[in-house]
Amino acid sequence: MKPIIEIARSFGINEDHLELYGKYKCKLDLSLGEELQDGPDGKLVLVTAMNPTPAGEGKTLTTIGLAQALNAIGEPTIAALREPSLGPCFGMKGGATGSNKAQIIPSEDINLHFTGDIHAITSAHNLLSAMIDNHIFQGNALRINPQRILWKRAMDMNDRSLRNIVTGLGSGNGVVQETGFMITTASEIMAVLCLSQDLIDLEQRLGQMLVAYNESGEVVTASQLGAVGAMVVLLKDAIKPNLVQTIEGTPVVVHGGPFANIAHGCSSVIGTKLSLKLAKVVVTEAGFGADLGAEKFFDIKCRQAGLIPSASVLVVTVKALKYNGGASKLELDQPNQQALELGLPNMKRHIENIQKFGVPVMVVINHFASDLMEELDLVIDYCRSLGVKVEISKVWAEGSQGGLGVAKTLTEILNQENANFSTLYPDNMDTQTKIEQIVREIYRGAEVSFSPAAVRSMNEIERLGFRSLPVCMAKTPYSFSDQPSLLGAPEGFTLHVRAVSVSAGAGFIVVHTGNIVTMPGLPKSPAAEQVYLDEQGEVVGLE
Amino acid sequence: MKPIIEIARSFGINEDHLELYGKYKCKLDLSLGEELQDGPDGKLVLVTAMNPTPAGEGKTLTTIGLAQALNAIGEPTIAALREPSLGPCFGMKGGATGSNKAQIIPSEDINLHFTGDIHAITSAHNLLSAMIDNHIFQGNALRINPQRILWKRAMDMNDRSLRNIVTGLGSGNGVVQETGFMITTASEIMAVLCLSQDLIDLEQRLGQMLVAYNESGEVVTASQLGAVGAMVVLLKDAIKPNLVQTIEGTPVVVHGGPFANIAHGCSSVIGTKLSLKLAKVVVTEAGFGADLGAEKFFDIKCRQAGLIPSASVLVVTVKALKYNGGASKLELDQPNQQALELGLPNMKRHIENIQKFGVPVMVVINHFASDLMEELDLVIDYCRSLGVKVEISKVWAEGSQGGLGVAKTLTEILNQENANFSTLYPDNMDTQTKIEQIVREIYRGAEVSFSPAAVRSMNEIERLGFRSLPVCMAKTPYSFSDQPSLLGAPEGFTLHVRAVSVSAGAGFIVVHTGNIVTMPGLPKSPAAEQVYLDEQGEVVGLE
Repeated sequence: MKPIIEIARSFGINEDHLELYGKYKCKLDLSLGEELQDGPDGKLVLVTAMNPTPAGEGKTLTTIGLAQALNAIGEPTIAALREPSLGPCFGMKGGATGSNKAQIIPSEDINLHFTGDIHAITSAHNLLSAMIDNHIFQGNALRINPQRILWKRAMDMNDRSLRNIVTGLGSGNGVVQETGFMITTASEIMAVLCLSQDLIDLEQRLGQMLVAYNESGEVVTASQLGAVGAMVVLLKDAIKPNLVQTIEGTPVVVHGGPFANIAHGCSSVIGTKLSLKLAKVVVTEAGFGADLGAEKFFDIKCRQAGLIPSASVLVVTVKALKYNGGASKLELDQPNQQALELGLPNMKRHIENIQKFGVPVMVVINHFASDLMEELDLVIDYCRSLGVKVEISKVWAEGSQGGLGVAKTLTEILNQENANFSTLYPDNMDTQTKIEQIVREIYRGAEVSFSPAAVRSMNEIERLGFRSLPVCMAKTPYSFSDQPSLLGAPEGFTLHVRAVSVSAGAGFIVVHTGNIVTMPGLPKSPAAEQVYLDEQGEVVGLE
Repeated sequence: MKPIIEIARSFGINEDHLELYGKYKCKLDLSLGEELQDGPDGKLVLVTAMNPTPAGEGKTLTTIGLAQALNAIGEPTIAALREPSLGPCFGMKGGATGSNKAQIIPSEDINLHFTGDIHAITSAHNLLSAMIDNHIFQGNALRINPQRILWKRAMDMNDRSLRNIVTGLGSGNGVVQETGFMITTASEIMAVLCLSQDLIDLEQRLGQMLVAYNESGEVVTASQLGAVGAMVVLLKDAIKPNLVQTIEGTPVVVHGGPFANIAHGCSSVIGTKLSLKLAKVVVTEAGFGADLGAEKFFDIKCRQAGLIPSASVLVVTVKALKYNGGASKLELDQPNQQALELGLPNMKRHIENIQKFGVPVMVVINHFASDLMEELDLVIDYCRSLGVKVEISKVWAEGSQGGLGVAKTLTEILNQENANFSTLYPDNMDTQTKIEQIVREIYRGAEVSFSPAAVRSMNEIERLGFRSLPVCMAKTPYSFSDQPSLLGAPEGFTLHVRAVSVSAGAGFIVVHTGNIVTMPGLPKSPAAEQVYLDEQGEVVGLE
């Protein structure tokens, strides 16, 4: 591992702009972005994927490996990634820093408290919660309706017992209230931090967050609670992008990690924009598959931040294609040409969808040892028949050397193909039409049904003046539809919108389909049981 | 502000042992303590105080100023302080880093997230909570009795609504349970961290923590939940002492900050022991007045860690003496010789109490602008009549220059008077007798009444084999008695013990008198409302 000062220096960053957290992690001061603001931007590449499956597609891994490979062929590249959340590390999945020869380090620090960003968000979130309840308890000058508090509490832990709780029991302990906790990555503050352009924008967005309705049915904002100044102070370091490195010394900006269902699932705008000033190419990722991740990256992050993506990489695996073609998850290692062929339309639809945004796309097959040559050839031939470039990536096993083909092809696209980016829908369109357009053009459903509550909320959104906000779809990632078991490329389905809500600080309308859990639980055997510090002081069990 | 590397170097600490958090904060690697373990120890000085009053006595301020003054007269000194908790910063009191010319810096960072220690403790605490509930939810192999769960949740926030809550409501959301949150500084893990000698000790103590009773009435420990390895991993950096500096460049180890009622209220053993290897004199403080703070420092921290204090400084103020003599808190600025004289017995009792531990004591009058010469002389003459050295401290206004007299007198005591430290009671004594001895000898009450529940708990403690643990009194800090309004030097009162519980990891028996609140609330106008980041990016409102 090289000192992070050296990594920064190799991309022209002076030590004065670094705030070190040990020798191998640092934050980049916001003044760096200000100094570079008139310089040219690098090219922005989105790494997205087909619909995720239980086998894991390796989107983060591919992003890391691709950044390494681009540097290896002489293209100065930075990867811009999301920060892992503690909760899931101790639940089902372990860490989230790539693995083997395509990983970011020091991975155990990044997976644990890192530079404290998520803890800061938790604190800011819960300070606001405490100030709302205290306001009511101390006389309720704003006439907040205790039955209509929108703001819950947050914790970076998988704890199902906190999903639905009653607080304020007992004398002198506040106002009795039915509420709950979400995991911190689902907090609107995480989305706000990731979409803010600077501290002033952060302050404005925090102030706009809706926390409750008052007795007259008007909305109450965080600004009215007097909480914003203290929240900004709590977040003043969290808003600075973190710099770490890959195992090959490629710089990686790891900053922010909002949920990909009720939020937009992308790393921070500040981190992305700063990276674009520092590198020729910036490779970034978005949560889940392209139906959710890429659509939100384009329609929310790029729209709000004025970012222009130059290309997109669609990660697929032979296993995931077979799964989408009907193979059971226990047989994905087995040859199954029929399932593979049946799964290809899933990939095809994602390709077409990305092209609708005017962004050139290439396919990367993340290689597994069980993949057969015939299977790989089938996927490659299919892509070529669609006129889409495709490469096999072996970055897990080989690091940058396993990604040279991808890097070269991507560079050709960046040099030769002109992106003509546009969002899917304009700002000035009502919420219902925006939703219907996404369902029709991206998901390819036949129609959308709206619950009466959703209709009421959409009317309320018009009334409150939030019409121009983009929509943020909260949908199962496993299917184009709202039914997780409807794999492949389903058509003719109805998408059911259960509820619609406003994240006024983040600046989007959340569209709830199905039952989205914002507080995960622990499995029967939590990963935490296998985590320990060995005698050399090394963390075991977090990868 | 000097770079922290320079501060460390001036006390012989090599850069290799530092983990930097920016330029002005660092953690000291545990290997430093191991390397120095055969070297000589400096002298340990406890700064304590008379009973606290609403006027504030300036114990932390005096500790900081004294360390500066000792360095100024050529005695290499480190101050060892507690870390501020976020919750209170946004509630009533603002920050906790001293002020004006006797403060530690960067104060806003120290008052906010600092190096993340308290966040790490919150995470470890709530991971255990989640694993307990998940264990029950997933089949309850340990047969935990959901009605007898001892372990609650923790958050570093003042939020009264979380004191009493019901969790696990709704289908699939765990087991319904009446529980609550405490502020993180009240977590047993904070006490464990502060009393641990090293990582192995930490692991053992965490494992010993009692989390519940099972259906057979036997205790269930954190170790049985399989949570300890992950908790140690979460705490692996939090256990390393933090180094910062005073405004005059005196090194200060700021590490750990447990509650001073249900816990022992002292900074970490690791930080204190390391400081003793690095400096000729280590000045440290304990929470509240000497009846609670000094007693626990001697009987819990020094007993467990094998520390031998060489002297003690008792901080008094003219205002606090008047208040203890009956003056109202609005009139403490006014001359009131009668109240002052009536308050002196409070100071006298604290002096005698400290002497009972065989520790030489001097009085420091923390000077306020409103103090009259006659008032100061009265206190000085009274101390001299007791044969106790006394000095006026003006460190708030003048920094080290205002503490030279204190520093010189303290140095004389350290050079001339021999401490003959002993704890108040032996390990091998039953809990009830330990409590009675403290009440008789320190508080000077006439008797102790035990509730039936307390008696049952003490019997249970004998049965479980915790007899040898010291007791940790949870009592109002405002009076020697358990009645906050009984000021001065009350006698003849009965102390009522409401409940007794075991902190088996921390290694003490908590004795609950009165109603101790472990989750504070916010006041009508929270300090948070006045906190903001100014246009230069400086934090306003946290001091």
